[in-house]
Amino acid sequence: MVLKLHGLSVSTNTARVVACLHEKDVEFELVLVDLFACGNKEPSFLAKNPFGQIPVLEDGGITLFESRAISSYVAEKFKESGTDLIRHESLEEAALVKVWTEVESQQYHPAICPIIYEFFGKPVQGLEPDQAVIDANLVKLEKVLDVYETKLSSTKYLAGDFYSLADLHHFPYTFYFMKTPWGSLINDRPHVKAWWEDITSRPALNKVAEGMTFGENQ
Amino acid sequence: MVLKLHGLSVSTNTARVVACLHEKDVEFELVLVDLFACGNKEPSFLAKNPFGQIPVLEDGGITLFESRAISSYVAEKFKESGTDLIRHESLEEAALVKVWTEVESQQYHPAICPIIYEFFGKPVQGLEPDQAVIDANLVKLEKVLDVYETKLSSTKYLAGDFYSLADLHHFPYTFYFMKTPWGSLINDRPHVKAWWEDITSRPALNKVAEGMTFGENQ
Ligand SMILES: N[C@@H](CCC(=O)N[C@@H](CS)C(=O)NCC(=O)O)C(=O)O
Ligand SMILES: N[C@@H](CCC(=O)N[C@@H](CS)C(=O)NCC(=O)O)C(=O)O
Repeated sequence: MVLKLHGLSVSTNTARVVACLHEKDVEFELVLVDLFACGNKEPSFLAKNPFGQIPVLEDGGITLFESRAISSYVAEKFKESGTDLIRHESLEEAALVKVWTEVESQQYHPAICPIIYEFFGKPVQGLEPDQAVIDANLVKLEKVLDVYETKLSSTKYLAGDFYSLADLHHFPYTFYFMKTPWGSLINDRPHVKAWWEDITSRPALNKVAEGMTFGENQ
Repeated sequence: MVLKLHGLSVSTNTARVVACLHEKDVEFELVLVDLFACGNKEPSFLAKNPFGQIPVLEDGGITLFESRAISSYVAEKFKESGTDLIRHESLEEAALVKVWTEVESQQYHPAICPIIYEFFGKPVQGLEPDQAVIDANLVKLEKVLDVYETKLSSTKYLAGDFYSLADLHHFPYTFYFMKTPWGSLINDRPHVKAWWEDITSRPALNKVAEGMTFGENQ
């Protein structure tokens, strides 16, 4: 039975999972959830994810939410097909993938997420972005990117000399971030820039990017 | 060679890993890092964790940081000893552990962490807690706890009828939260309260709690 992914192509958290599915060559059906009509707050959807958020994955009888949990499930279940995203053959490499996956979640995401929300999310709701929030988080993001610059000067990717789930998890928010006026935070750091160019040249991520048109007709 | 954990018993993120090590019956040596003397910003420590934070785990030649990555590494490497925290024998149960581990990281932690920081962290630095920040996050935390209350009325633990890493990851921040004036958020929700009492009766977590004396002599 084909996997069912409930979400939207333009959504960052959906895109994280779609990117993983493409890397693993796993077929799936995208079931659209109309956030604007609050389709995610209907009882049938809340039964799948009580937090009322996309994405949700259904794989036979298994229903999962939280994008990073889903991508990690997909990377593990289909470990033999497509790109190996979790380095399951090496205890040490697998551990480093976990470390840098957590870095995305605990260091990078808390800084970049409010910037994307202020810049893209608020205008959609007719609200004014709060520049003070953006500025404070740009400072936090720079500190994280300084660590990345040093790390990426010694290894090609975050967890080592191999592309992994840790790199992939950065894709959706960074993709939208590059459409803000602050893309120089990435481009002014030569190793971060090279890493980003490398990642975005991957066919799997190119395919995801096509659907990520949020904010384009604002 | 015995595992070396760099950290402090009073630190929430260290306690998360110590709890896991106790559950897995894994011997380790705690190497104290003097945060007050900025031991975590010294070059020798930054070489282990470029973010300059505790905890850090050294296991032979492998150096890891980010508490959730470390505990997940420990739970996996020592899957055959102590409590099974990752349900490695069932694809579905293992997937649900991932989901609820992410819920802690992405839903619970962003709400509870600022409360603990304002209430315990700021006074230590001679700063005044910001009640508006606390209030806003109490509201966020209540929403998450409402979902937990419903979930825990149908399963004994978060991921299912088995204790797992997902429950364990909640321990350190919730432990300190229960020492704030807002413990009723837990105690007024009967299933959340029962879950919390169950978890805190575990010998492994009792042992960790002994060292968690932060804020006691304020
Ligand atoms: N931590 C969740 C976040 C999911 C999330 O915030 N999804 C957004 C769309 S990108 C959503 O559903 N927003 C609607 C809402 O929160 O009501 C994940 O990684 O899946
Ligand atoms: N996301 C990290 C957070 C680690 C963290 O914030 N540790 C605190 C102590 S509980 C620390 O080292 N603070 C000192 C600092 O950030 O400079 C983890 O889970 O390990």
